[in-house]
Amino acid sequence: MYRNRTCGELRIADVNKEVTLSGWVHKIRKMGGMTFVDLRDRYGVTQLSFNQEKNQELCEQANRLGREWVIQVTGKVEERSSKNPNIPTGEIEIAVTAIVVLNAAQTPPFTIETETDGGDDLRMKYRYLDLRRNVVRKNLELRHKMAFEVRKYLDERDFLEVETPVLIGSTPEGARDFIVPSRMNPGEFYALPQSPQLFKQLLMVSGFDRYFQIVKCFRDEDLRADRQPEFTQIDCEMSFVQQEDVLNMFEGLTKHLFKTLKGIDLPDFPRMSYADAMRQYGSDKPDIRFEMKFVEIKDLTTDRGFGVFDSSEYVGAICAQGSASYTRKQLDELTDFVKRPQIGAKGLIYVRYNEDGSLKSSVDKFYSESDLKAWAERCNAKPGDLILVLSGETEKTQKQLSELRLEMGSRLGLRDKNNYKCLWVVDFPLLEKDEELNRFFAKHHPFTSPKPEDIALLDSDPGAVRANAYDLVINGVEVGGGSIRIHDSALQQKMFSVLGFTEERAQEQFGFLMNAFKYGAPPHGGIAFGLDRLVSIFAGLDSIRDCIAFPKNNSGRDVMIDAPSRIEQEQLDELGLVIVNREK
Amino acid sequence: MYRNRTCGELRIADVNKEVTLSGWVHKIRKMGGMTFVDLRDRYGVTQLSFNQEKNQELCEQANRLGREWVIQVTGKVEERSSKNPNIPTGEIEIAVTAIVVLNAAQTPPFTIETETDGGDDLRMKYRYLDLRRNVVRKNLELRHKMAFEVRKYLDERDFLEVETPVLIGSTPEGARDFIVPSRMNPGEFYALPQSPQLFKQLLMVSGFDRYFQIVKCFRDEDLRADRQPEFTQIDCEMSFVQQEDVLNMFEGLTKHLFKTLKGIDLPDFPRMSYADAMRQYGSDKPDIRFEMKFVEIKDLTTDRGFGVFDSSEYVGAICAQGSASYTRKQLDELTDFVKRPQIGAKGLIYVRYNEDGSLKSSVDKFYSESDLKAWAERCNAKPGDLILVLSGETEKTQKQLSELRLEMGSRLGLRDKNNYKCLWVVDFPLLEKDEELNRFFAKHHPFTSPKPEDIALLDSDPGAVRANAYDLVINGVEVGGGSIRIHDSALQQKMFSVLGFTEERAQEQFGFLMNAFKYGAPPHGGIAFGLDRLVSIFAGLDSIRDCIAFPKNNSGRDVMIDAPSRIEQEQLDELGLVIVNREK
Repeated sequence: MYRNRTCGELRIADVNKEVTLSGWVHKIRKMGGMTFVDLRDRYGVTQLSFNQEKNQELCEQANRLGREWVIQVTGKVEERSSKNPNIPTGEIEIAVTAIVVLNAAQTPPFTIETETDGGDDLRMKYRYLDLRRNVVRKNLELRHKMAFEVRKYLDERDFLEVETPVLIGSTPEGARDFIVPSRMNPGEFYALPQSPQLFKQLLMVSGFDRYFQIVKCFRDEDLRADRQPEFTQIDCEMSFVQQEDVLNMFEGLTKHLFKTLKGIDLPDFPRMSYADAMRQYGSDKPDIRFEMKFVEIKDLTTDRGFGVFDSSEYVGAICAQGSASYTRKQLDELTDFVKRPQIGAKGLIYVRYNEDGSLKSSVDKFYSESDLKAWAERCNAKPGDLILVLSGETEKTQKQLSELRLEMGSRLGLRDKNNYKCLWVVDFPLLEKDEELNRFFAKHHPFTSPKPEDIALLDSDPGAVRANAYDLVINGVEVGGGSIRIHDSALQQKMFSVLGFTEERAQEQFGFLMNAFKYGAPPHGGIAFGLDRLVSIFAGLDSIRDCIAFPKNNSGRDVMIDAPSRIEQEQLDELGLVIVNREK
Repeated sequence: MYRNRTCGELRIADVNKEVTLSGWVHKIRKMGGMTFVDLRDRYGVTQLSFNQEKNQELCEQANRLGREWVIQVTGKVEERSSKNPNIPTGEIEIAVTAIVVLNAAQTPPFTIETETDGGDDLRMKYRYLDLRRNVVRKNLELRHKMAFEVRKYLDERDFLEVETPVLIGSTPEGARDFIVPSRMNPGEFYALPQSPQLFKQLLMVSGFDRYFQIVKCFRDEDLRADRQPEFTQIDCEMSFVQQEDVLNMFEGLTKHLFKTLKGIDLPDFPRMSYADAMRQYGSDKPDIRFEMKFVEIKDLTTDRGFGVFDSSEYVGAICAQGSASYTRKQLDELTDFVKRPQIGAKGLIYVRYNEDGSLKSSVDKFYSESDLKAWAERCNAKPGDLILVLSGETEKTQKQLSELRLEMGSRLGLRDKNNYKCLWVVDFPLLEKDEELNRFFAKHHPFTSPKPEDIALLDSDPGAVRANAYDLVINGVEVGGGSIRIHDSALQQKMFSVLGFTEERAQEQFGFLMNAFKYGAPPHGGIAFGLDRLVSIFAGLDSIRDCIAFPKNNSGRDVMIDAPSRIEQEQLDELGLVIVNREK
């Protein structure tokens, strides 16, 4: 028996008990004739004490211990003379009577503390040591709890978790698949699933009624901070439901998670149409922790000789409260910000609504104070506020203004990580036009249902058709999305024809699911949440990497195990594959 | 709203309520002026009634419905005149006032009933229809429940579920890996994990203390009824534990599953050493639902002129109670059984212990009745019993006798699927000798710990060293296995040297984990259960396929989605791969 207690559980009530603990040597301190060792395990830290006078040999043994050694100790729980109110075990210590070194340790390459001196590369190479840090492990504990609570909530509501295959077929549409050569079927390949979409719809055809799965999905795309080649989805589907049923079910799930994991009671989630989101926030995932909605002022700006605005399709303003005192330097920073290539604005116009009621802008040459006053009024600005204006082509400018809005929100401290605002964005467009190819594409996927009242528009104005599709947005991050699917085959045919599919092509690409639909498909719809993102938001992380035990870097490499790697020639031979040099 | 009730919930207490149901048309019957439709969903079947006299149009609409159509009906709950006590909704029916056809259906290629007329191939091709069958869906419901209960049990005991990567590195040892070409790292490959062994040990080094994961694993091996290229493991690891701790924890889990899923209270599991299992049952996974242990009778058989026994290393008998009346034909069948190539015995000797006390054998030429009496006494046989004897090289003969024992157990009805006998097989040999290569291999893996009392034998008699390794066997099926791992690096070095590894080779193949161990590895051990097998046993299935939603066939194909398949040339080009024709 290595221990009868953990390092996190002893309290003042345990004084005088004989205990055995095991764990890692976290810290060693010598004070006078005493040596103190902080012993750490997953559950906490317990102070061990060694008295030079009482037991010199044992104390010297303690002095020889090194950081991160694994030891077992036996001793008596005693009240501490100098208590530590910051940790639950801070009132007691163990007067150790025996030490067993279970494993010595080399000095780790970085400190195992909340603030570590290990850079990202070192931390990833020694991820198993990085995971010893409380802050990192806490994220994975939260992830465990979240997955468990998701399952509990859904199980209580008759959802069945069904495992769908990981080795499936490759589909040419959508993101790039990871492929897996089949040894038993030479020249043929499996693909790893980008999502279990096909299978969950089939399970609805099978009458499973309510399905979910917490499942790994795969995309061979170039990587970013919030993208990994393998990621985890909470994938759900329901039969005999309309959009409202799905939203209610998963708003309930989200509230349940906030309540059980963070003790937060959330109010009902507002719903915003895609059109409103784009018009007011320039984004289909607006951060509604703060207002600062877009105000269109094009009509107030024309015919004053300012060509930039006159030639713009759109002139939009946001009002940053209390920022009239922004310095020239700060304004220049904002201008530089919107001019960054990834944002791409040409310039930034500002209006200071000074505390004294006067208005001062960067376009005073063209606009009188009463012009500016009219802008300010429409923006609902008050003395002390700063108005920022961008102009240009509508969609592009709204996106730029959205970035600027978020930047101002951050600068003004309006994006508190501990303030959670959830939002349903609904009524997404069904189709997206590729102007170059002059054809429509499905915004979600070709099985997404149009809104019944918009079906007539499929012929006359396809671009105006709204879908029964929805996203859950928390603090400006899209954490989930889904749709009601088409279950009527006539409508499905119509959809394919709008998408410009020949019957053959529709059959070739989607025949499989369409075939299944012929045998009695119920109305159904669903949603998928990104578990990595959801955990990140709950944990207040900037990157999803910190809630993944063994993440990959931006080149798709696991630097700890050094994968991917070369394989044996024999393995390639068995698969009938040859590697060719690629010229880039 | 498509429904306000399911097809499984209405009872006599609901009479007179107006309800809306949705589901599939399961059956249509006409009787007199009435039409009855059984409406089915996942939750049950509800009878709908249509009265030709009261509403001719509606009744005719019902008559036009086809099997497996998806419909929505509204009507009033009424007490049935002819009740069906076999189903929970059997006391009521719905007097329908409106039908909406949600989706028509083609006639399915086989009947959606407990006993279907669809053969295996057809069922797999139309798996989405096969899954509509209650018996098939029930298996997946059981699987869901089992996974949920496993998580609940482990969560309550501080286990953290941690997701480990699916895209890892390939290891040359062990079974064949599935590999995944990396586009971002040309010429390099990921592999799909055969188990998360490496990662779970690393998590112990990280101080996670108690880990589990219900996780997909992959092996590119030729397939059998109980093997799939992708399978699911309940993978567990604990720190600061000895073998006894692990066995107790997971015996508890197994009992919890039997209790909650089948209402069965199991007694404590017996433990049997590997040596005893081989000696008494000729198998490391004995079916202990029945005794029929092996009895060695070599010493009683020598020097009677029967060369077969005289030249045999081993002569072993089993006693089949009450089978003395076996006919010549039945005995011939048994002889044919043991002579089958996959068993490979040369012949079978029998002794009938007749009811009248006389003994009659197939070797009466060599053995007197008192010789046979001595055999019978050692076998603890009674009049009416049949003694079956095999002889030859010890290990081989024990395996043959094991097959014969199982066959006799089946014939005698001693292997009831609803009688569950669990067993821990312990003290496995640490090493296995490859006589041809004249070297030892790790029976489990090179990180498995030898029993402390046997460590001294590593030098003198490696083959005799027992491991801290264990298997959980239920009804003759190995459902789980694991070991205590080596955590002491000196012992690990020793182990590698016994295995004949040079230091370089050990470093090359296992350096990664050994490196991690240098930074303070706790004593640890674990176990992995095969979820597919566990569900199969609980559900009484002969093949694991029936508890997998979308299984693959023996060629590794998913015939429903037709995967694996050819991929686009562009995909191969991007990966820098060329397919070559293989000559077999």
